[in-house]
Amino acid sequence: MRASVLHPGGTVTVETRAVPAPAPGDVLVRVAAVGVCGSDTHYLRHGRIGEYVVTAPIVLGHEASGRIAAVGEGVPATRIGERVSIEPQRPDPTSAESLRGDYHLCPHMRFFATPPVDGALAEYVTIGAAFAHPVPDSVSDEAAALLEPLSVGIAALRKARIGVGGRVLIAGAGPIGLVCAQVARASGATEIVVTDPDPDRRAAASRFGATRAADAGAAVGAGFDAFVDASGAPAAVLAGIRAVRPAGRIVLVGMGADSMALPVSLIQNRELVLTGVFRYANTWPTAIALAASGAVDLDGMVTGRFGLDGAEDALNADRLSGTIKAVVYPASSERRGEDQREEGRA
Amino acid sequence: MRASVLHPGGTVTVETRAVPAPAPGDVLVRVAAVGVCGSDTHYLRHGRIGEYVVTAPIVLGHEASGRIAAVGEGVPATRIGERVSIEPQRPDPTSAESLRGDYHLCPHMRFFATPPVDGALAEYVTIGAAFAHPVPDSVSDEAAALLEPLSVGIAALRKARIGVGGRVLIAGAGPIGLVCAQVARASGATEIVVTDPDPDRRAAASRFGATRAADAGAAVGAGFDAFVDASGAPAAVLAGIRAVRPAGRIVLVGMGADSMALPVSLIQNRELVLTGVFRYANTWPTAIALAASGAVDLDGMVTGRFGLDGAEDALNADRLSGTIKAVVYPASSERRGEDQREEGRA
Amino acid sequence: MRASVLHPGGTVTVETRAVPAPAPGDVLVRVAAVGVCGSDTHYLRHGRIGEYVVTAPIVLGHEASGRIAAVGEGVPATRIGERVSIEPQRPDPTSAESLRGDYHLCPHMRFFATPPVDGALAEYVTIGAAFAHPVPDSVSDEAAALLEPLSVGIAALRKARIGVGGRVLIAGAGPIGLVCAQVARASGATEIVVTDPDPDRRAAASRFGATRAADAGAAVGAGFDAFVDASGAPAAVLAGIRAVRPAGRIVLVGMGADSMALPVSLIQNRELVLTGVFRYANTWPTAIALAASGAVDLDGMVTGRFGLDGAEDALNADRLSGTIKAVVYPASSERRGEDQREEGRA
Amino acid sequence: MRASVLHPGGTVTVETRAVPAPAPGDVLVRVAAVGVCGSDTHYLRHGRIGEYVVTAPIVLGHEASGRIAAVGEGVPATRIGERVSIEPQRPDPTSAESLRGDYHLCPHMRFFATPPVDGALAEYVTIGAAFAHPVPDSVSDEAAALLEPLSVGIAALRKARIGVGGRVLIAGAGPIGLVCAQVARASGATEIVVTDPDPDRRAAASRFGATRAADAGAAVGAGFDAFVDASGAPAAVLAGIRAVRPAGRIVLVGMGADSMALPVSLIQNRELVLTGVFRYANTWPTAIALAASGAVDLDGMVTGRFGLDGAEDALNADRLSGTIKAVVYPASSERRGEDQREEGRA
Repeated sequence: MRASVLHPGGTVTVETRAVPAPAPGDVLVRVAAVGVCGSDTHYLRHGRIGEYVVTAPIVLGHEASGRIAAVGEGVPATRIGERVSIEPQRPDPTSAESLRGDYHLCPHMRFFATPPVDGALAEYVTIGAAFAHPVPDSVSDEAAALLEPLSVGIAALRKARIGVGGRVLIAGAGPIGLVCAQVARASGATEIVVTDPDPDRRAAASRFGATRAADAGAAVGAGFDAFVDASGAPAAVLAGIRAVRPAGRIVLVGMGADSMALPVSLIQNRELVLTGVFRYANTWPTAIALAASGAVDLDGMVTGRFGLDGAEDALNADRLSGTIKAVVYPASSERRGEDQREEGRA
Repeated sequence: MRASVLHPGGTVTVETRAVPAPAPGDVLVRVAAVGVCGSDTHYLRHGRIGEYVVTAPIVLGHEASGRIAAVGEGVPATRIGERVSIEPQRPDPTSAESLRGDYHLCPHMRFFATPPVDGALAEYVTIGAAFAHPVPDSVSDEAAALLEPLSVGIAALRKARIGVGGRVLIAGAGPIGLVCAQVARASGATEIVVTDPDPDRRAAASRFGATRAADAGAAVGAGFDAFVDASGAPAAVLAGIRAVRPAGRIVLVGMGADSMALPVSLIQNRELVLTGVFRYANTWPTAIALAASGAVDLDGMVTGRFGLDGAEDALNADRLSGTIKAVVYPASSERRGEDQREEGRA
Repeated sequence: MRASVLHPGGTVTVETRAVPAPAPGDVLVRVAAVGVCGSDTHYLRHGRIGEYVVTAPIVLGHEASGRIAAVGEGVPATRIGERVSIEPQRPDPTSAESLRGDYHLCPHMRFFATPPVDGALAEYVTIGAAFAHPVPDSVSDEAAALLEPLSVGIAALRKARIGVGGRVLIAGAGPIGLVCAQVARASGATEIVVTDPDPDRRAAASRFGATRAADAGAAVGAGFDAFVDASGAPAAVLAGIRAVRPAGRIVLVGMGADSMALPVSLIQNRELVLTGVFRYANTWPTAIALAASGAVDLDGMVTGRFGLDGAEDALNADRLSGTIKAVVYPASSERRGEDQREEGRA
Repeated sequence: MRASVLHPGGTVTVETRAVPAPAPGDVLVRVAAVGVCGSDTHYLRHGRIGEYVVTAPIVLGHEASGRIAAVGEGVPATRIGERVSIEPQRPDPTSAESLRGDYHLCPHMRFFATPPVDGALAEYVTIGAAFAHPVPDSVSDEAAALLEPLSVGIAALRKARIGVGGRVLIAGAGPIGLVCAQVARASGATEIVVTDPDPDRRAAASRFGATRAADAGAAVGAGFDAFVDASGAPAAVLAGIRAVRPAGRIVLVGMGADSMALPVSLIQNRELVLTGVFRYANTWPTAIALAASGAVDLDGMVTGRFGLDGAEDALNADRLSGTIKAVVYPASSERRGEDQREEGRA
């Protein structure tokens, strides 16, 4: 099979590798679509994220969908042919974290496209059978791949405890900010303010759920039930914390500096609750239901389509104006996807 | 002022009474619209609900809206003229229940239209200033009155813990079942099955949020995250409990028999959580946000309009085919509301 | 190895069986002590519990401790020799229930001593490595076995949400009522009322945590934060429900009839929360900490000691006055344990 | 009556003032004992805490007990003579925060000894009747006063969600750290590590609940369920955050700098939950139960006793070696309490 490989130093090549055999309990998935995430791009440009360093060739990509091509021992053969969305996690099911339902915090996690674990920018991948979630035909290959970032939004909004009639402030209108806004809208939030310095991104926020899109630093009001940061920008985090009502919640999703000066006396005086999102657990059933029902729009977030040979261009698509989410089709050898000429925004 | 009075024995008269003076902390509201609830009708026909007995003349009605006409000591005069929705509760703010946020469970509660406390089928009522909730112009008088049953739905769905992607079964498509379905839809539930033996009510359920409306006793599937009973019918309750997934929730809203045979071994084996809704606390801000945003449709639930002289007809409107919610306009002396001829369904 | 086997019809024999080989991920445990549970006795006398029927020979016993004698593939050999308490569950780690932390509700559960799964009244058993919990030397073999009923108490008190200063009513002073009382005491509950018709059991309750032990049917006061039923007796359940404060909790642990008439209008009016305990999840670390710290006393609950040849006597020990918990030592061929003559209460 | 008054600039005088008359709903309390809090001392020495500035004479003291001497309108005269612990808060019961049970976060709060509201270092004070909590005779005057700092500990441990078998790390062994340790012990925590640079304070920690008392900066292990900061020291906060297990909780109680550099990427990667304690709500019933049952020891924390004329000495008692908590008896005109000569540690 063909795979897109990132080498230490930042070179991306397409290589031929053996199709993996599914281990007991696993399935083999022929990959249909892979979304590009900011973390993939970060590995390309910086060779590391925190403690995770690209010291050996690695396949990127952890937002993926496809079709089950083979099953490992113990998995019913009737699953072959299923269209699935891949939850790219391999936790140890017997860790204390997994046993209490926080499998995403398992210290023995092997996660797609996190060194040294390969990801999905390849024709085939294997994954635990329970982490290959069947999707109905109403969910496209692209949407099935983007259930991964949608899961980040679901995890963030769960922690924000936003429900019907809720008021939420979201900083950052990149892909994660947009899925957060969409989940907030689906959850019945009636005030969803999204801030971003980029007017194109603000326009996108308005399309994807924001009841108001404001410039970064603009006055956005106060008394929000929750603030979700999807920017990683310290100024946005500080402004967001100040905008939350007593006993309200702050959820940090965007990655920024390792350390940040936070207003602890304000957190104390208002008894705010601050937490962060690392990954997600038990979100796929929700994500599938939201995508299948039309409550969220994932297809509309796709702004660029690429074949496997165009994976490097896809990883750099964030430099193109108007890009929200680039998608790679590993089975295609085109540099750009076929419909790219019309729909792309290069 | 004029008031509709229910007498022991079941006679309803219109009487002239003194306009009440607002006590310190209270406001005087000129009543605009009053929804008729099944409990009002029950008092008319049976003279009691449980331990509450009509032993003296009483004014019914606890779903009410209006405009502030005067304020008691300590309430800013600037509130005069505000359009408000009335939360018909007078708890003792110093009871243990109130102090911990469960003011609706306060043992010293005085609640509208519950003997011996008068309700809102009158030209004027008084209420605590904090329980007269301002509503925007986008919320009609009728919708402002119906924030009360909507609050029951909000309280029920909070206890059901239904959020985005949730699956809920609701028994009964009367007004409470319909507001529950509407709140479930607004909350992002993606499967909302409503059961009712009446085909007209099932049609209403489909208009107001049900993704499926089924006959009582029909097979509705299993594995629901929650079951909300708005029927009070033992057979529906039993079927609903059996349809809930392990660790799922059962919320009993509909009033039925004092005692009911419940499948305790099933509740144990699946560790189901069963609770009930009495009234509501801290729901009005949510209810106003939902009504103002259009996430719920309360105006569409109004099926009959009556003047104060038609209050008894309004109380009996449930006997008319197609009735969902009858509304009385206490300032009007018509038997029927002016637009009744076109819109009514007698 | 030798094993105690219950045959359909109620005969108990000691048989010789092959020592099982630990499957991948499992450990082989040489069993030290096994507590007798009411469910074991129920299978002996009635041949079934609900849908679970003794249709083939079965080894009873699910409260067990021992020492790791061998490990399956993937389990470090360094674990051999560890003293362990056995959590007698084999859930499917990929079920929806397991993934969200409710592994005890997994529909594919295989549980010790539940037909057709054998239990621990044998010299050796196998169990998943993560379910063989190491215990410190300060926890005796008997206490390590009784971490299983202690876990039921922990699960019950978690659901009851009793913390420091809490007031709890417990019906039934059998082994489960006693562990509930002990966990309530360890949790800082300051009022722990235990009811039981048997004066010996009431005396035991007072030793194991009750601040008051009352006869069944006695007036016990009102306003409890929670009621835990460990009796299965309908009259006790009804009295308990009535004794709970508004928004309080009811936890049904004792097994009784499949169906029970419950005061639903009271549950509604007080918005009580009623649930049940089936088994437990994520309780062993807590149980070990409680036993090792001396916060609970499990050794003191052992009232009879038996060798494997006395297993049937142990199963019938509930008929002896003063029995709380009988323990079987499968490695011993004595009918009674050596210290039985002094300590037993026949 | 006599009152101890702090003047802008830091002078403390004893003045004669009129005994206040209880307003409707209030009670008048003859003050028995008042604990000195670090915030009182801070006002004495610095003239302000954050935005609260001593710009006019003020009576300090907010940890108080006494006996009801008179009642305002609406309060039953039968309460006269009751021994009470004072919860020194006057929230607006109709604020959104009060209505949902967070009355301590009410923006209209008037709190004892917080400019411009007078406190309890006087012979008489008034308080809302519901905030004068009756105490049994088994709770001494001093302990009844110290239910206030105990309430801070209860609030902190509730947010830390420490229950039976929990593992908690506490930084700081001043009075707040000690009540946190005591509440942790009462809650059934089995590992309670307290850090403090002062060996006397570490010794106190060991007396009041710590299973281990360690020097600040010492290695204390990892994987704690929660970290409670009662030090306000940035180094302690950072070390504490790092010692918490994934999904664990961090509760900041100690007051330090307004802003602090926090390890946000660690908070994100472990999905830690960080919050703060401002004051407390609904803690007195718990505090009374704990003190009355002997589960906590408040009397043992009293290390100095002073008459009203010795109030300034009491405020400076933190400078004396061995001081944990100084108590002032406003009805006494002694500089030192009578038993001070023996028990004091000057």
